[in-house]
Amino acid sequence: MKDLIDSYPIQDEEFKWQKSCFVDELSEKVQRESCLMGWIHDFEIQNLSDRTQVLFLIFRDGTGLKEFQITKPELVKKIAILERESVIAIRTLGTKVNDLKIISQAKPVPILPCLITDHSSIDLVINRAYALRTERMKAILKIQDSIFSSVRKFFEKEKFYEIRPPIIGPATDPGIRGAKAGELDFYGKRYKLTTSMILYKQMTICSLEKIYSFSPNIRLEDHATQETGRHLAEFYQIDVEQAFADYHDAMNLGEKLLITIFKAVKRNCKKELNLLERNLIIPTRPFQKLTYKEVLEQLREMKFGDLQDGQEIPWNAEKALSELFDAPFWITDYPYGSRGFYDRQNPENPSSLKDFDLMYPGGFGEAMSGSEREYLYDKVKRKMLEQGVPLVGYKWYFDMLQRGVPPSAGFGLGVERLTRYICGLEKIWEATAFPKVP
Amino acid sequence: MKDLIDSYPIQDEEFKWQKSCFVDELSEKVQRESCLMGWIHDFEIQNLSDRTQVLFLIFRDGTGLKEFQITKPELVKKIAILERESVIAIRTLGTKVNDLKIISQAKPVPILPCLITDHSSIDLVINRAYALRTERMKAILKIQDSIFSSVRKFFEKEKFYEIRPPIIGPATDPGIRGAKAGELDFYGKRYKLTTSMILYKQMTICSLEKIYSFSPNIRLEDHATQETGRHLAEFYQIDVEQAFADYHDAMNLGEKLLITIFKAVKRNCKKELNLLERNLIIPTRPFQKLTYKEVLEQLREMKFGDLQDGQEIPWNAEKALSELFDAPFWITDYPYGSRGFYDRQNPENPSSLKDFDLMYPGGFGEAMSGSEREYLYDKVKRKMLEQGVPLVGYKWYFDMLQRGVPPSAGFGLGVERLTRYICGLEKIWEATAFPKVP
Repeated sequence: MKDLIDSYPIQDEEFKWQKSCFVDELSEKVQRESCLMGWIHDFEIQNLSDRTQVLFLIFRDGTGLKEFQITKPELVKKIAILERESVIAIRTLGTKVNDLKIISQAKPVPILPCLITDHSSIDLVINRAYALRTERMKAILKIQDSIFSSVRKFFEKEKFYEIRPPIIGPATDPGIRGAKAGELDFYGKRYKLTTSMILYKQMTICSLEKIYSFSPNIRLEDHATQETGRHLAEFYQIDVEQAFADYHDAMNLGEKLLITIFKAVKRNCKKELNLLERNLIIPTRPFQKLTYKEVLEQLREMKFGDLQDGQEIPWNAEKALSELFDAPFWITDYPYGSRGFYDRQNPENPSSLKDFDLMYPGGFGEAMSGSEREYLYDKVKRKMLEQGVPLVGYKWYFDMLQRGVPPSAGFGLGVERLTRYICGLEKIWEATAFPKVP
Repeated sequence: MKDLIDSYPIQDEEFKWQKSCFVDELSEKVQRESCLMGWIHDFEIQNLSDRTQVLFLIFRDGTGLKEFQITKPELVKKIAILERESVIAIRTLGTKVNDLKIISQAKPVPILPCLITDHSSIDLVINRAYALRTERMKAILKIQDSIFSSVRKFFEKEKFYEIRPPIIGPATDPGIRGAKAGELDFYGKRYKLTTSMILYKQMTICSLEKIYSFSPNIRLEDHATQETGRHLAEFYQIDVEQAFADYHDAMNLGEKLLITIFKAVKRNCKKELNLLERNLIIPTRPFQKLTYKEVLEQLREMKFGDLQDGQEIPWNAEKALSELFDAPFWITDYPYGSRGFYDRQNPENPSSLKDFDLMYPGGFGEAMSGSEREYLYDKVKRKMLEQGVPLVGYKWYFDMLQRGVPPSAGFGLGVERLTRYICGLEKIWEATAFPKVP
């Protein structure tokens, strides 16, 4: 066996097989021999009355599972000593295996409840190399791919340009609800990992006006946020901004985007949604809008009587509110001072901001966060001083604001939270290939 | 004027204008009034013989420039005191401006040679907020958007899934030609910023088999690499991997991908390529293949007589070689020991690796880098020890390799270098919105 492994791959005279198709391309009717390559998902040996054996092999590749029978004694022997997850090549005709090669042997695989039934376990993070191989995780990743693809098609149609987002920089968004930014040494300077590219978006709409990015964000959240099941320390935002737009424009765009994504996933990922037992409802426009004030009143009538005016809505209250709804809804007009300095103060109602969050229904909580932006140098600087933001690292930003920045509006839509909602996952660490949990 | 600014935006009774179209949507024939919003690109006042004045305004928005005439004395006065780059709204009929509002005043703008003729100046990095506003930079960003879009369509057709790539992790690719990885404190652990997601790609092909990512990479290159004009400390790679593929499969895929991108840009960005005076040639398949040995012989006949066997090809030699070609070409089979431990040793020729680089012609240098991968635990561990890679942080990787990892092949294609080549840019810091230069 050792020889076989060493003599892989196809250059070897003994083993010049070429993978001819995937499991999902196999048609039972085709009477040609196929060559499949993939994993031993499981197998079972039955002893027949005539003293021969048949091995029932559950074979797996990137596209799914399929059962084959092996009756040739030398092939039964070859598999019998292998562990599940070993990589093999098989030549098949119908459901029979005619020949078999071993490509990469696996060590014994532990039986982990998190991979079978306990999908909310944190063990899923630790055992990532196994978790990624489950049909459940594959369904989630395929749905996420469909999300990416539909987002791009939407913005192409709406004439937004995709911008390559910054990973690090001298300053980043400080308005991130108590989370910390990661820091690195960049040629002797303290640079921060992007927590949100809001400031860069303002720079870019001075060029192309309508832009979006898949922006990589690091936020070192408090350990306690692990309990929410919807915080990751590493995540992506679909970051959108449009010059000369107001926050109603941004909310309209957000609604159209979300509906486009939901429709695409329902159309392209029927099998995957079924596997996840998720009935994804397409919401109708316009989504319901509640002001922060209305939300506060409603929450006080629930079990959150001690909520103060002007305070951010706590995670658990957000969740409780979201459980009351069966469609996404907006919370608008957060109080002045509660959010980042870049959220625009309402000139007609100075105690509130022209901003919004979108909430998923069913307890899934925050989906998007956005606003009109402050764009006048004096105003921004006054607000930063008011909020006690250290001005170090913002020189480029102040310079920029004095070069003719237009009003704009936009939002960030968290990729993993979107995936979590669409797939109906309890914990967000299922909603990405490589989760980093606070 | 101060009042006007403060009374913006459209909620204000005095200024409830709505942007009705972009410059490139204006048709000379339309006899309806339009409302445009954008920037004062430039203006000039002419005194006419009848003592009246006409102001020629070059107005700019995200889609382009357009000249208008202003004759109303109160509007001429209003613009005359503004600086270039101030943001305004105008009501126009044909080329006449009927009304005008000031949205955001700019400070005096310096005249920078880098924005006009000196496109290779490092000043372009420092003056980013200006640089992004040039028609040249807009053309580059539009071409980059077209690259992104064509890459995705290509992989959708080829049934590859897009994976959300890691930003940070306990370990990253150490095989990065002397560059350092950025480090951050991640909840008390030393984490590294991804320099290449190669190890994660090996994990993911155990799930979906055919995957790609737009992967954010940080490499703290030596300061000297700034001179090459093709190194950035922050960049993106289109990272591709396929299970059960060999390096010829990967090179075939790479050729098809590149031709698809080139064709899409030529089709969608005629105007932008013209502006950049770039005649992009579509290469024909298969691309020429040279082995490392052949390249070394050729370089020794040039001015690089002292190149040693087994050595990486220096940047300047790579560039000189690339200048001899007028189409992209492959360099294959680098010597054992010269590249990262994950490049697969050729079992039939143990002194060389089953790997490749793709070179752009015309001195543009490296385009892609890829290989077949080592996938057997024993082999990988032996090579890491041989190369002196510290094993700290690789536990998850070794665990994974013992769980049945298949052979695979793939490559990384640098987004900014691709943009640089397609646009014909001398310096790579033009090839991205937010360049970080070593």
